[in-house]
Amino acid sequence: MKKMNMVIAQSGGPSMVINESLVGAVLEARKSAKIGKILGARHGILGILGNDYVDLRKPSVKKLEAIAETPSSALGSCRKKPDAADCRAIFEEFRKLSVGYFFYIGGNDSADAARIVAEEAEKEGYPLVVYHIPKTIDNDLRSCDHTPGFGSAARFVASAIRGDDLDNRALEGVKIDIIMGRDAGFLTAASALARVRPDDGPHLIYLPEVPFSEEKFVKDVKAAVKKFGRCVCAVSEGIRGKDGIAIGAKLGSGEKDSHGNVQMSGSGALGDALAKILKTKAGVKRVRADTFGYLQRSFPGIASKVDQAEARAAGAAAVKAALKGELSKGTIAIVREEAKKYKVAFAPVPIANAAKYTRSVPKEYIAKNGHDVTEAFLAYARPIVGELPPCEVL
Amino acid sequence: MKKMNMVIAQSGGPSMVINESLVGAVLEARKSAKIGKILGARHGILGILGNDYVDLRKPSVKKLEAIAETPSSALGSCRKKPDAADCRAIFEEFRKLSVGYFFYIGGNDSADAARIVAEEAEKEGYPLVVYHIPKTIDNDLRSCDHTPGFGSAARFVASAIRGDDLDNRALEGVKIDIIMGRDAGFLTAASALARVRPDDGPHLIYLPEVPFSEEKFVKDVKAAVKKFGRCVCAVSEGIRGKDGIAIGAKLGSGEKDSHGNVQMSGSGALGDALAKILKTKAGVKRVRADTFGYLQRSFPGIASKVDQAEARAAGAAAVKAALKGELSKGTIAIVREEAKKYKVAFAPVPIANAAKYTRSVPKEYIAKNGHDVTEAFLAYARPIVGELPPCEVL
Repeated sequence: MKKMNMVIAQSGGPSMVINESLVGAVLEARKSAKIGKILGARHGILGILGNDYVDLRKPSVKKLEAIAETPSSALGSCRKKPDAADCRAIFEEFRKLSVGYFFYIGGNDSADAARIVAEEAEKEGYPLVVYHIPKTIDNDLRSCDHTPGFGSAARFVASAIRGDDLDNRALEGVKIDIIMGRDAGFLTAASALARVRPDDGPHLIYLPEVPFSEEKFVKDVKAAVKKFGRCVCAVSEGIRGKDGIAIGAKLGSGEKDSHGNVQMSGSGALGDALAKILKTKAGVKRVRADTFGYLQRSFPGIASKVDQAEARAAGAAAVKAALKGELSKGTIAIVREEAKKYKVAFAPVPIANAAKYTRSVPKEYIAKNGHDVTEAFLAYARPIVGELPPCEVL
Repeated sequence: MKKMNMVIAQSGGPSMVINESLVGAVLEARKSAKIGKILGARHGILGILGNDYVDLRKPSVKKLEAIAETPSSALGSCRKKPDAADCRAIFEEFRKLSVGYFFYIGGNDSADAARIVAEEAEKEGYPLVVYHIPKTIDNDLRSCDHTPGFGSAARFVASAIRGDDLDNRALEGVKIDIIMGRDAGFLTAASALARVRPDDGPHLIYLPEVPFSEEKFVKDVKAAVKKFGRCVCAVSEGIRGKDGIAIGAKLGSGEKDSHGNVQMSGSGALGDALAKILKTKAGVKRVRADTFGYLQRSFPGIASKVDQAEARAAGAAAVKAALKGELSKGTIAIVREEAKKYKVAFAPVPIANAAKYTRSVPKEYIAKNGHDVTEAFLAYARPIVGELPPCEVL
């Protein structure tokens, strides 16, 4: 049996556990006699195009375990959509290096990039097994019950909102917290896990799935302030008006990546704009806005243990599936098994299932009032996020 | 011996460990035969003026321990400077309730409020022992080597910058992070604890103690990008130009509290303004700005263990000192003992030592280039903040 070499890379936004998937894949590959070199391309497909690799047979298991615990993408990342010319350059590289396996860890855009590479390889007759390994804090892959990276980011969000709600109890007023999620509101919805008592925040939750109305927002906040004497709002960066255009994108720089995504994170503009609305139209004196920004995907030391284990297992599952060779272009679906106790399976499915299009928060997870989540969502998210630190009030 | 009742309250910005001080004081007071009722006033002196108390003899030790671990001010807070009329109303309250001891946990403004109460009590001949218990994430009390609350906030900042720097390694560009600290740059300086390797961020650190120049900022960032291919900047919310006026305050709402402090946190305006400067004047394409905001003082589960223990001890020390009666109006100084091993003492000193005026980051902690800290600062801050989670790169 001829050994083939493998290339693995990371793409899209980093997460707290994307290195778990990398290490899971590398350790699994090291077990196989079918795999020769294990090459990590730096900054996704840019590393392949630029011939910039890390030899992943070299690091000790101890070092790899430390990498796994470290947030962000250890190989570096990119947001590059490959065209036909890029693919030809990639296969030229791969031929020279005898690469037979290509693994790409990322979200829907990264899955799409991997799908393009796989389809172009077929067209060109280059024999390549391509596997996408799921990752996104947005939790919006259609192929997964939930996506590695989400649980840890959700844990950050729920923790941050819990702390911020305690802060808001101490110094009352209205607090707006802007949470990541370009198209899907899962991460913003996870803020609800912060609640312990009936008067705990977040008191209002706004998802991109529900058209945002300034009038309703002002009315909701007034009602919450009347009821609680204060109000904590969890707002998705992706909220959009009836026209379907994200409000934050209108306020931002207009900067776009090669998948056509407009910049939304890395600016406090949306929070500040909403705070201004409340000061002028809701007559609230003390309004503060924080934008959780990049911390929610990269904060060290607070990852969800379940998320870490699943990210590791997804990486290993992709290598196992690629070696079995049932699918030449696949992704790993995370499937929740129907049972009282939380349990998941990792199943190889066609890569197209994860690529390009995303999923939204389903209707049964959104409260009828349009500014909260349902018990069904909490039951869905709780085991992925895990227990939070103690929270006691006087 | 006649028992006297005590009132304790919290004031100013919350911290992750201010409840440790509350619980430290309450558990110490429960040991004494000299103290009758232990009353917690809600929202600082507003609770006294509004006759709103919590009976702190009631909660179980288990509940108090959970309160101690919970961030923010469990009794609620306020930013109220009492005038002579407030003080008369307070003493009327205290007379009715036979209050002989008053403890106020907070920063320099809270110490000043306690000082005013103590001095007015003397004028009026009302026998009252007043102790301020130090707390501030800003670390700017003149009476302390360092202040309870700082170590945990600094731990948040160092962790956040470490994660964000890893994120910036993966997707390169310039990242600006705005950190709390109205007048003192200690918390921003603590970002330097994030570094492990010579090329780790923060690459540039801007404190309020060094006049901020837009030209130097642009030049510094260009040089860092040239050297590292990227740049992470830790910027204090309190940076000020040569005119001494905080740049963030000029951009903000102009809202003031009764101590005359202008609102700076709870807005992304400063970060966004600095990002705009870099995009237009430094020609950097990818610039992102995050404002750490309220999370840095209220995030649950990540407090520094040393900070927790010291906050607890400071609360207990205040009650012990008040019962001894050496000073009728005091605060607890945290004194670092000269020794190889980190060790502190808790000493009662006059309340005026902590009140009103703050201290700045001393010159020996600021690097000569004006955008970094010295080894002396790192040696000072490290034991207070503790070890951070693993951080390994490929």
